[in-house]
Amino acid sequence: MDGKRMGERTLLLPSRPALLSWAGAAGRREGEGPLGGSFDLLCPDDTFGQDSWEKAEREMLRQALCLALEKTGMSPAELDLLFAGDLLNQCVSSSFAARELRAPYLGLYGACSTMGEALLLAALTVDGGYARRAGAAACSHFCTAERQYRTPLEYGCQRPPTAQWTVTGAGAVVLGREGDGPRVTHVTPGRVVDLGITDTGNMGAAMAPAAHDTLSAHFRDTGRRPEDYDLILTGDLGELGSRLLRTLFIREGTDLTERYTDCGLLIYDRQRQDVHCGGSGCGCSASVLACHILPGMAAGRWRRVLFCPTGALHSPTTALQGESVPGICHAVALEVSAGEGDGHGVS
Amino acid sequence: MDGKRMGERTLLLPSRPALLSWAGAAGRREGEGPLGGSFDLLCPDDTFGQDSWEKAEREMLRQALCLALEKTGMSPAELDLLFAGDLLNQCVSSSFAARELRAPYLGLYGACSTMGEALLLAALTVDGGYARRAGAAACSHFCTAERQYRTPLEYGCQRPPTAQWTVTGAGAVVLGREGDGPRVTHVTPGRVVDLGITDTGNMGAAMAPAAHDTLSAHFRDTGRRPEDYDLILTGDLGELGSRLLRTLFIREGTDLTERYTDCGLLIYDRQRQDVHCGGSGCGCSASVLACHILPGMAAGRWRRVLFCPTGALHSPTTALQGESVPGICHAVALEVSAGEGDGHGVS
Repeated sequence: MDGKRMGERTLLLPSRPALLSWAGAAGRREGEGPLGGSFDLLCPDDTFGQDSWEKAEREMLRQALCLALEKTGMSPAELDLLFAGDLLNQCVSSSFAARELRAPYLGLYGACSTMGEALLLAALTVDGGYARRAGAAACSHFCTAERQYRTPLEYGCQRPPTAQWTVTGAGAVVLGREGDGPRVTHVTPGRVVDLGITDTGNMGAAMAPAAHDTLSAHFRDTGRRPEDYDLILTGDLGELGSRLLRTLFIREGTDLTERYTDCGLLIYDRQRQDVHCGGSGCGCSASVLACHILPGMAAGRWRRVLFCPTGALHSPTTALQGESVPGICHAVALEVSAGEGDGHGVS
Repeated sequence: MDGKRMGERTLLLPSRPALLSWAGAAGRREGEGPLGGSFDLLCPDDTFGQDSWEKAEREMLRQALCLALEKTGMSPAELDLLFAGDLLNQCVSSSFAARELRAPYLGLYGACSTMGEALLLAALTVDGGYARRAGAAACSHFCTAERQYRTPLEYGCQRPPTAQWTVTGAGAVVLGREGDGPRVTHVTPGRVVDLGITDTGNMGAAMAPAAHDTLSAHFRDTGRRPEDYDLILTGDLGELGSRLLRTLFIREGTDLTERYTDCGLLIYDRQRQDVHCGGSGCGCSASVLACHILPGMAAGRWRRVLFCPTGALHSPTTALQGESVPGICHAVALEVSAGEGDGHGVS
């Protein structure tokens, strides 16, 4: 197999595709959070100039994608493949944004893990020589997600303490074979893991076992340990899910704490912003990757990052039918090569 | 690029991944249609032994996948990657079926084009050396789709003459690098094309321009002509959409008629089965591929087939908001090598 498979399910990308550019957009609450100064595009009223929340969400994604392309000096027509997804029924934010771009489009659904799935597939197609330039993007919007998954905004429903807040945000990256950016070295695709959580107000607990499964497979397959990464980052486990993930590893004698955090914890100030357990949504890991992690890697803050977006694969219908919440997590290992950035290398 | 790209957007797969096995399942109406004798699994009451239509749909997909794996003598654990999708909100049929299989899972949303997208990506990952065995699967169920996209079954809503009937069906294939089955030689990923059709009761018209766009790109990129294929097969354009596609080509001086048909026309007897313009749904092209086309290729009936599933990428919400229906079509070229089957070769 050309040495591209390691262990059970990790894939090695010999050409180490480069992230050529990245861009992210977000809304008001995200702008008021700890990463507020990092987003490329901020919309203070969350509408992105549109007259419905659904149109706002797709416009935010389109703007993030166009800006990422602009940064490379490319036109959308030069994108060989676009992988994108979102949380809306029938993934309409991505499809309608792709309609404007006219790039060959492969729609994904991985719930909040979508940015991981998109990055993984974009990296494989670039590494395999099937795309010179591939795009990966994902988005979510608080107002569309509340209406679709929970209750209309106007209803003012109370949220349980385990709930998370869907990020209004989008992230887009462009990958290519040559370039200066951080590189994708390994990917570990996730399996569906379900330990029987039925409370859709506690998705951190539902997704933590999937994150544990994928991270464990990644460490086993590659022979790497947590300390081989400067940063291990799950997507949106939030406060409770992150604690559960750390506990699952501690039981096995592995302490993630020093290197580990979660995009859902980075994007809001939980004390101040009334988001309960933290951020969630496809746009959470996508915008944190594009606006915080990749710029940080380029600036030498981290050299090796394991980016592990997490997703809860239920639907309102399965929840009403009493089903539990299946989780998934895809891991993507990013690395700044020696000589790139000012990285403090890990052993 | 290792010679893997041809023209604008067609990809050449040098290793020609083989379809090792295939299986399909369907319901009562499909069993009573012209392909009734071809399905591996038929459920006379469409329930697949389950107590909800949603559970029936995922069980049908699970059974098709397990049977396709059984035919190769593989256990689900030997599948390196599974690409699957369906029409239900949050693609729950695929995610819940994947939960049972425990293979690394990449969820897709391409509406009724999903089997094309899954086959395309599975073939790329096998060709690129990222998977020894990859699965591609898709499904739809009339009863879940009616409830979600249109009206509850009990309402007995009248259907316009341009409407199509969502197939209760699933199809699954397993790909590998070596094997006797038909091989994937080229793929042409689709772009989102939207000429402004707003009638969701006329999806054939909405999708035909996307099929024209992808087929045109495929012919242009490869230098092939329609007569280089024994069969060109769209997914679910139905009677009206197929007529529109033929018309779009005739305007350019190309007559597809002799080699061309549509899965939505093959699966039902339109005169007898009250399905108006024909079949639709992810399960339409997936089950026709698995139960009619691939067995036919293996038996030497067709040597070269261009399989082009078509999808309408709208949602009930976008339709209610007055949006038009974006279409997409992915093309996958299948070929039985000389010496395989009893094929009447084309020049």
